[in-house]
Amino acid sequence: MRYLKMTLAYDGTNYAGWQVQVGQATVQAALEAALKKITGEDIRAIASGRTDAGVHALGQVVSFRTQAQLSPDVFCRALNGNLPHDIHVWEVLEAPEGFHAIRDAVGKRYRYVIQDGPAPDIFARHYSWRIPHALDAEAMHAAAQLLLGTHDFSSFEASGSPRQNSVRTVTDLFVARRWEGAVGRIVIEIAADGFLYNMVRNIVGALYEVGRGEQPVDWISRILAGKDRRVRYPTAPPQGLFLVSVDYDR
Amino acid sequence: MRYLKMTLAYDGTNYAGWQVQVGQATVQAALEAALKKITGEDIRAIASGRTDAGVHALGQVVSFRTQAQLSPDVFCRALNGNLPHDIHVWEVLEAPEGFHAIRDAVGKRYRYVIQDGPAPDIFARHYSWRIPHALDAEAMHAAAQLLLGTHDFSSFEASGSPRQNSVRTVTDLFVARRWEGAVGRIVIEIAADGFLYNMVRNIVGALYEVGRGEQPVDWISRILAGKDRRVRYPTAPPQGLFLVSVDYDR
Repeated sequence: MRYLKMTLAYDGTNYAGWQVQVGQATVQAALEAALKKITGEDIRAIASGRTDAGVHALGQVVSFRTQAQLSPDVFCRALNGNLPHDIHVWEVLEAPEGFHAIRDAVGKRYRYVIQDGPAPDIFARHYSWRIPHALDAEAMHAAAQLLLGTHDFSSFEASGSPRQNSVRTVTDLFVARRWEGAVGRIVIEIAADGFLYNMVRNIVGALYEVGRGEQPVDWISRILAGKDRRVRYPTAPPQGLFLVSVDYDR
Repeated sequence: MRYLKMTLAYDGTNYAGWQVQVGQATVQAALEAALKKITGEDIRAIASGRTDAGVHALGQVVSFRTQAQLSPDVFCRALNGNLPHDIHVWEVLEAPEGFHAIRDAVGKRYRYVIQDGPAPDIFARHYSWRIPHALDAEAMHAAAQLLLGTHDFSSFEASGSPRQNSVRTVTDLFVARRWEGAVGRIVIEIAADGFLYNMVRNIVGALYEVGRGEQPVDWISRILAGKDRRVRYPTAPPQGLFLVSVDYDR
């Protein structure tokens, strides 16, 4: 059996997330249908992690096994020829025997985009969280720095998630303001060795409370120490979230 | 009767263009429904020009008449509260008696966006023309300069358009390359005192022939002099086109 590694982008707007669900359009279903068409095989596509409905990917990684003898480049072109226009495969590579996109992942990077201020960018409405007033991006950045390093992130895990080891190491986290004409844009990037369920969207929701002046910067440390998601702050909506890249040991 | 002037943006992706058509979602129908809800009146919204299905606007101008006594600012907020998220009203202003968005327009500016090269931006697929190989933006710019000034533009009018005066004055026209990461972006802007039907999309289609090396730069002058749309070149697709702004004498 041959193991392959695929890197792909998708626009999550029209999908009920990554994972196959009966009666729903999902990215996994679209990919597996294209693989079936190309190889005739029933191939299981395994992503580094599920993305929820509306969440996007710039560089999701998928592993799969096949007996087809196509070269990786031909596979890549054939996939793009058989996928809808909101999914694009960047590359297909031969992978070591046993390669598994979930188990072998050693880190991930996410980006979250907020558009803030009175002037909306209607063209970005599926690709950002719209806040109709300006946020304090510097305060958000200062608060974000308190999350760098190794911590128990259970305060930022979706409530009701199954118990597990919730210690993660955040290796990079920044909040940057950009302007595009009159439209305010805040970009949040976070890299870690792994993420709990809804961790990025919960961190962004908490940073939003700091950005709108509802909470001081060091409130973030108190949430982290509390290890309790029931503290009241919003979970940022899915459409602002992008899975940027996934790292593997080589 | 009170005359008002409205400036608005819309994402044309989900509309069958500006103009009301039975059984179709159009921008005019959405706007007139919102005006009806706010004022109780059957108000006719007149845009500076129709946009085709899939074409977008950053600053379309609409004139309308009403007996409602709401202030322009309240009108603006009420409209945004009653419009879908792909339409946004920037401002509503009192206009002189008799103001008419078509008749009184003295100039317009359009933008056309191409994404070229092997790396696609799937998130821009509704907002650009995707060309899978790199175009020569400098040659396109040089060709575009040959269209500046006052000319008979009938070679760039949709064939079958009703005969009329087809002399227009192009006051600004440039082709600029921008990069966004690995994604090539070519932005074409054109301002004129008026436009024939499909004129921008035909000019972009002709510039594309130059950009891909199929025709030399001065071929554009020959098309212009020929006054015949039947010369073979493509009409650029609608989703790359944005109406940027409309000028009125003040």
